[in-house]
Amino acid sequence: MITETQFQKELEELKENLLKMATLVEGTIHDAVQSLVKRDSELANEIFKREKQINDLELVIDEMCLKLLALRQPMAVDLRFITSAMKIITDLERMGDQAVNIAERALSLNQEPQLKPYIDLPRMAEIAQTMVKDVLDAFVNRDSKLARSVCERDDLVDGLNDQVVRELLTYMMSDPKTITRAVHLMIIARCLERIADHATNIAEDVIFMVDALVIKHHADVKEEKG
Amino acid sequence: MITETQFQKELEELKENLLKMATLVEGTIHDAVQSLVKRDSELANEIFKREKQINDLELVIDEMCLKLLALRQPMAVDLRFITSAMKIITDLERMGDQAVNIAERALSLNQEPQLKPYIDLPRMAEIAQTMVKDVLDAFVNRDSKLARSVCERDDLVDGLNDQVVRELLTYMMSDPKTITRAVHLMIIARCLERIADHATNIAEDVIFMVDALVIKHHADVKEEKG
Repeated sequence: MITETQFQKELEELKENLLKMATLVEGTIHDAVQSLVKRDSELANEIFKREKQINDLELVIDEMCLKLLALRQPMAVDLRFITSAMKIITDLERMGDQAVNIAERALSLNQEPQLKPYIDLPRMAEIAQTMVKDVLDAFVNRDSKLARSVCERDDLVDGLNDQVVRELLTYMMSDPKTITRAVHLMIIARCLERIADHATNIAEDVIFMVDALVIKHHADVKEEKG
Repeated sequence: MITETQFQKELEELKENLLKMATLVEGTIHDAVQSLVKRDSELANEIFKREKQINDLELVIDEMCLKLLALRQPMAVDLRFITSAMKIITDLERMGDQAVNIAERALSLNQEPQLKPYIDLPRMAEIAQTMVKDVLDAFVNRDSKLARSVCERDDLVDGLNDQVVRELLTYMMSDPKTITRAVHLMIIARCLERIADHATNIAEDVIFMVDALVIKHHADVKEEKG
């Protein structure tokens, strides 16, 4: 017989898998940027294997969610939790894609002299990683306050991205030989910015789920700040 | 009393709304690129309003899906259809975000002399638009053949993007004064490439849904072609 407790156990298992996937993604972002910073092409090649694991985990969790929906027919809060989980794993999987993009650019860049010391990019990666970690914690613990702090950090990443782009434009303008490398680095910054965007998308879903408030498309918070 | 026919009617309504959202997105992509090509900043400003409509429609459809899941407790095929719909509207909404990015860059570019005639960008936009249209048709008609053709077109868009980047790099290297404009144009090309990626993501979901085959992470087709 199916008991309430069994359903709760299955939900716990779902949460564990989500956190596992998030940890994997977080580590992959870190290592992708480290493959650039440490000029470690072997590590860059590791990222491609890691992405495969992320993709496999997405499919496992997706299947798990479908089964929960079909067999347990959850209502209200649990229903929203499971459908949100299905959206979240799509975001996590795409963060993995972005890490692969970073690793590909790192492989190219590692074959040429280093254009400049990398300071802002690892900083962006670090913030993006904590956003991924915190937003998943916010999701499984239904913590909308933590989710809001993730949204706020998105501005930091956007600011760093603008700074990186401005700096690289200066390099490009003063020496055309730097253009190809500078474009690679701009793309890497953009990948990190997109990872932060994905985390922010999840955060907005969490806030929506928890507070049943549609902040996604009415950025009142931003207006207040502005 | 709830009849099977009522449920079918609700599914039809869901399909209509999905197609409506896709048409809106398609038109927005078109107009965003036209605001660049025709140097029409008024049209670029229209895009921001259009994005709001897209966002509102996403929320309406999301709610509709949740209600269907909660009240109708669909099984198997219908269950997968509804959860896929929920993921698809997220992709459509993000295509709207990309259109906004394009419009923002167009606004900047329209204030400066035109760097070059725009030929590849409208071509990329055109392909991306048909991908959006076709992938939604493929979804509502459960047509995996059409979905596969969408996946194939992604390579065309990627190829055009590479071409645009190469050409713009040449401009940048020969004349540093072109760098800022060239970067804007590279970003626009990348936005179009990302729109095509979103369409491809949906196409992979459709194929998964229809054929219950996991092609998403095992690109056999690509290997055969390669």
